[in-house]
Amino acid sequence: MSGARVELSHGGGGRAMQQLIAEVFAPAFAHAGAKQGNDQAEFLLGAGRYAFSTDSYVISPLFFAGGDIGSLAVHGTVNDLAMGGALPLYLSAGFVIEEGFPLADLKRIATSMGHAAREAGVAIVTGDTKVVERGKGDGVFINTAGIGRVPEGVDLSGDRARPGDAILLSGSIGDHGVAIMASRSGLGFDTSIESDSAALHALVADMLAAAPNALRLLRDPTRGGLAATLNEIAAQSRVGMRLEESAIPVRPQVRGACELLGLDPLNVANEGKLIAVCDPDATEAVLAAMRAHPLGREAARIGFVTDDPQRFVEMRTIFGGRRMVDWLHGEQLPRIC
Amino acid sequence: MSGARVELSHGGGGRAMQQLIAEVFAPAFAHAGAKQGNDQAEFLLGAGRYAFSTDSYVISPLFFAGGDIGSLAVHGTVNDLAMGGALPLYLSAGFVIEEGFPLADLKRIATSMGHAAREAGVAIVTGDTKVVERGKGDGVFINTAGIGRVPEGVDLSGDRARPGDAILLSGSIGDHGVAIMASRSGLGFDTSIESDSAALHALVADMLAAAPNALRLLRDPTRGGLAATLNEIAAQSRVGMRLEESAIPVRPQVRGACELLGLDPLNVANEGKLIAVCDPDATEAVLAAMRAHPLGREAARIGFVTDDPQRFVEMRTIFGGRRMVDWLHGEQLPRIC
Repeated sequence: MSGARVELSHGGGGRAMQQLIAEVFAPAFAHAGAKQGNDQAEFLLGAGRYAFSTDSYVISPLFFAGGDIGSLAVHGTVNDLAMGGALPLYLSAGFVIEEGFPLADLKRIATSMGHAAREAGVAIVTGDTKVVERGKGDGVFINTAGIGRVPEGVDLSGDRARPGDAILLSGSIGDHGVAIMASRSGLGFDTSIESDSAALHALVADMLAAAPNALRLLRDPTRGGLAATLNEIAAQSRVGMRLEESAIPVRPQVRGACELLGLDPLNVANEGKLIAVCDPDATEAVLAAMRAHPLGREAARIGFVTDDPQRFVEMRTIFGGRRMVDWLHGEQLPRIC
Repeated sequence: MSGARVELSHGGGGRAMQQLIAEVFAPAFAHAGAKQGNDQAEFLLGAGRYAFSTDSYVISPLFFAGGDIGSLAVHGTVNDLAMGGALPLYLSAGFVIEEGFPLADLKRIATSMGHAAREAGVAIVTGDTKVVERGKGDGVFINTAGIGRVPEGVDLSGDRARPGDAILLSGSIGDHGVAIMASRSGLGFDTSIESDSAALHALVADMLAAAPNALRLLRDPTRGGLAATLNEIAAQSRVGMRLEESAIPVRPQVRGACELLGLDPLNVANEGKLIAVCDPDATEAVLAAMRAHPLGREAARIGFVTDDPQRFVEMRTIFGGRRMVDWLHGEQLPRIC
């Protein structure tokens, strides 16, 4: 189907849509288990606690170093579930496609989604396709929603950080945001940095196994970066934080690109990193579990939770000074995820 | 916030987004049960069978007679769950908003969504907001995904129709599609028809109670209308169908509008109707249950399933002739849902 493009009829509920599903989505999302051909998937669940999450992906460009909108749409929602401690089980996929979008690109994206899902051990079991007129969308937007099972005894929530708790970070920050900026034309710089987009649930499972009751919360610092995520947690838990800049891993190319663009790596988006807040006594056990996993090799303790009625996130800089880590009003660059 | 508009910063993961959530979405979706402030909702589920479904809504215009994109986004996904026999429990909501969209309209849509959800007895427990640049979207697109519980013993699927089965329809067709066309400027006609957009799960529960084992499948004839839905079922079940045109309820204003526009009501979208295929012996019991519900008062037996290797859907016309009921390649008008 080289040269073929998505037409409005592909979203019309008729033969053309059936054909698109049969040719593009069904082979890419093939899996065992769910019934095909109905407007809903069905599955058996055991009694217990479940997590449910959704994200829409509007990233631009659609293809970038280290991934594409398809793999990102799987990793992002898997990670939202994993940050609740859940083992991801099922995903839905909703596509809003702009008329004229190349079918070959759609197929590439669907294939990448299917690959990412299989790698993460989740099944894409139900979906939807809509097509909007040329100029009323931008290539393709994808929404995924996910259901995951929360293991017995796991209780992670953004309001559980307490003064004295350790703040851990799974690896270097800013890779995703810098990779996306570098992919955008006209920004005038090139870099070898790839997006860190990855599914974090297996890392989370290892951390929970290593210190079952010591983890207070997990959060992935996506839009808004580490700064926004830590400020969110501080507000939710009504605490302050003290960070150690020298402990926060930043790749030299990311630091260089940020300097060039006038950005602070603390505000740049990540798609394969997590922050953990844990009982200080469990710090070494959790860090050891993280470093034993490929996605946590550079894990570090980057600071601790303080008792601060003003809920400030402060940082001791590499020069020994102190500065506030504030969150921005918005994002430096839109469409980062 | 009259005159205020959605800015790119509202999708950036920073303070502006938190403010949008706090001012627009949180009050509209307020409910008891789920933890607030995390990237995933959590809830307890009993052991059993569950349904999971998603739809994106790109309808134009956003506000129309009988509803808006917010109520539609609830009804549509509730109905996809209900067609599997499921009792809807939880919804997610993902918004893709075009920069410059009036905040007052967004608030109106969110309020309508919250109202529709409370009326349907489902909780909107998790969500996401993205903002795209002006000209890269069209006002607002909404994705909802839903989880519902399938009661013990219920087994509905598009492949279960058998020759001899009765085909039932819950009411008049074409109301939604005609209402949307009438809402669009420049079409040169006016009508008093309102969209039939409604949540059908209570009607389904009554039907299941009346004839627990007699229902083979349920399907809501949305995009592509009755014709597409029946052809889909015929293909899935490997059967044919024989319809009786005189038995299919069409409001005079819908018939008039369709004649004016050169459309066949059989191809026009519905958002509050269902098709049931059932054991012929249970026809009267199911019809009685349907007619006793406000959303099934005009329910009728419109035909029966035939043994046809060609899987044709045929119709005896009001003039006594016969014609094929084919499905279209696409939809006559895009953005109908």
